[in-house]
Amino acid sequence: MIEFVKKAKAASRLVATLRDDVKQRILREMAAALRSETAAIVAANQKDMAYAEEAQLSGALKDRLLLDEKRIDAMATALEEIAALKDPVGRILEGWINPNGLKIEKVAVPIGVIGVIYESRPNVTSDVAALCFKSGNVAILKGGKEAIHSNEAIAAVLQKVLLANNLPKEAIAMLPDATREGVDQLIKMDQYLDLIIPRGGEALIRHVNANATVPVVKHDKGLCHIFVEKTADLGKATPILINAKTQRPGVCNAMETLLIDEAIAASYLPEVKKAFDAKGTELRGCEATAKIIAVKPATEEDWHTEYLENILSIRIVSGLDAAIEHIATYGSGHSDAILSKDYEAIESFLNRVDSAAVYANASTRFTDGGAFGFGAEVGISTNKLHARGPMGINELTTYKFKVTGEGQIR
Amino acid sequence: MIEFVKKAKAASRLVATLRDDVKQRILREMAAALRSETAAIVAANQKDMAYAEEAQLSGALKDRLLLDEKRIDAMATALEEIAALKDPVGRILEGWINPNGLKIEKVAVPIGVIGVIYESRPNVTSDVAALCFKSGNVAILKGGKEAIHSNEAIAAVLQKVLLANNLPKEAIAMLPDATREGVDQLIKMDQYLDLIIPRGGEALIRHVNANATVPVVKHDKGLCHIFVEKTADLGKATPILINAKTQRPGVCNAMETLLIDEAIAASYLPEVKKAFDAKGTELRGCEATAKIIAVKPATEEDWHTEYLENILSIRIVSGLDAAIEHIATYGSGHSDAILSKDYEAIESFLNRVDSAAVYANASTRFTDGGAFGFGAEVGISTNKLHARGPMGINELTTYKFKVTGEGQIR
Repeated sequence: MIEFVKKAKAASRLVATLRDDVKQRILREMAAALRSETAAIVAANQKDMAYAEEAQLSGALKDRLLLDEKRIDAMATALEEIAALKDPVGRILEGWINPNGLKIEKVAVPIGVIGVIYESRPNVTSDVAALCFKSGNVAILKGGKEAIHSNEAIAAVLQKVLLANNLPKEAIAMLPDATREGVDQLIKMDQYLDLIIPRGGEALIRHVNANATVPVVKHDKGLCHIFVEKTADLGKATPILINAKTQRPGVCNAMETLLIDEAIAASYLPEVKKAFDAKGTELRGCEATAKIIAVKPATEEDWHTEYLENILSIRIVSGLDAAIEHIATYGSGHSDAILSKDYEAIESFLNRVDSAAVYANASTRFTDGGAFGFGAEVGISTNKLHARGPMGINELTTYKFKVTGEGQIR
Repeated sequence: MIEFVKKAKAASRLVATLRDDVKQRILREMAAALRSETAAIVAANQKDMAYAEEAQLSGALKDRLLLDEKRIDAMATALEEIAALKDPVGRILEGWINPNGLKIEKVAVPIGVIGVIYESRPNVTSDVAALCFKSGNVAILKGGKEAIHSNEAIAAVLQKVLLANNLPKEAIAMLPDATREGVDQLIKMDQYLDLIIPRGGEALIRHVNANATVPVVKHDKGLCHIFVEKTADLGKATPILINAKTQRPGVCNAMETLLIDEAIAASYLPEVKKAFDAKGTELRGCEATAKIIAVKPATEEDWHTEYLENILSIRIVSGLDAAIEHIATYGSGHSDAILSKDYEAIESFLNRVDSAAVYANASTRFTDGGAFGFGAEVGISTNKLHARGPMGINELTTYKFKVTGEGQIR
């Protein structure tokens, strides 16, 4: 293990200084190789599918796992898109000349070796590998065991292209010991590893965070709220609520709790109920809500819950301050919105709610790298440090100061 | 303890939204209060000095601990300087309008609650408290036990000003349980604490890093190198070497190891020895060095050692690649310099050496917030993530995305 991680570290010094035209060419060669090796990847995926069948995984999980020609082509296209992104390395973020004549440039550089722990979908393997490579980093990938044959086949295709370009195969590496013990070793190797990104269930993230000595950028849960303030344009509000909850209930930027200003609760809630009933959404409400519309009773537990399903909790609040207080107490700092026409209420909400993304009069569903215009994303960070919210390739860089002088001393 | 940290978290929501004119006024009031309470602070400091005497601390440590009228005035002046810095909160770092009309602003916001663990010098208490306050954060301070009376007296003065301005005293807080156990509790409170900054010995930093669930920005050791390449202007090189080693040997940006190109070793080393002998520097050299000048033999241990004293290790290397390899193997990623007139050698060194600050033809001693022009510094980060190198008040902020729309849905 230690030998493997040392090799990855050594590879990172090579990858860090590759010119962008070289990185672009290699990524396009990888895309072509994925397409030409489709049969081998599908064959490996069949082994995972057979295991999934045996283990009686759900239909949804099996669908996430499945690779076919079309999906492999989409993976290849994603690699070509990542190749075309502007190189994040070498950007001069700031620069100045000091009174003593020293020139100081703050320059974006790769982070180094990045461990990414993820689950299910095998396309993450090629996406994350390509994002790390484009940003001059070495990726150490650890996918779910249910996708192990698919992931290994994809990594093998990418590594063949690395070798053909005289780069070590450890520049895109699968963790050799993909057990819990292997992960536990990896996250303590701060001498060689620069960053760990855990994507997945809460238990995994908590475990990694509690045990890692390597810095962690978490991709944790999204318990997102929308607060309908009393001046909101209700004609626009309803489509936003429906979109935020039902367009894709299983994602982290979907709404979980609706907060309604008590001044409009009695008149507006029946309309809300009608719209959600049409989408088959299960509604759970506070006591005051239950007096206005028919809902299951919401418990304290509900306010803490990221359903990731077509379920919505509803709470009537006394106004802006109570809404902000609820979000501070129960929110996960991911994405929260206010729907309002009141300038001061909007400003106050946007400034006081401490979340990665705060919205006025739009759906929380926009919090992702694609919708933000980053081109591709590693994920959505729930960290406050280093990267917050959608993480694109720029967020896979750090910086150094280049200081050039002509003999300056203190 | 949990109640205390909860109060600090609550206070952070107030401090985060203070306008800069208010923060400036309060910081200036704190400066005035430090001056008018000088007698009380000196009295408290006397208790620490008596303990230092009893515990037979070294003269250097006692000097670091001592507070007198002049030093307290300097602390007050530092507060006034911090007050005058440009507010780092609310800076719009980026902003754009998406094709669908959504306006996205990436805005600097305070991190929240920051725990700072430090040693010896009591002026750090007011400096760090002010830097955190100016950047809209709440500081939880944990100084060394040898300075506990001084630190408590200083914090009490600052808190009195907070209370007079209707702010909770927990906005600048001393850790109530300043034992090892107290620290161990604090660093696991990731629900309330957003960042831990350990400044101090290696053992402390390693302990915090291994046990914290709160994100850590380390202020670790500086094992800095200067490589004198064969084309260097030796007339400029010698003053740089002397400055980097001897101006203040006890600081993290001082040079510890000198790497010399073998092409100039025989001719240049005698001049180096003469210059360092005049400064009383102890020289330790590799075998090849020992054949040219009289030095103590350097062992493998020396290349790993941050002396923090007037001791220098010297190694002759075969050229640029060997120098970079040595730094990659033994360096701490803090500050490293090349002295050269060769354009390609300089570019290669600056690009390939993976340190927070890389220098051409200047002393490594410039790596600090003051010398970089940041105005004041929390310290010098040896992290790669979030903040690298000198940390000013801008580095005490994170960001959020403010997204404003007019009914957009996906």
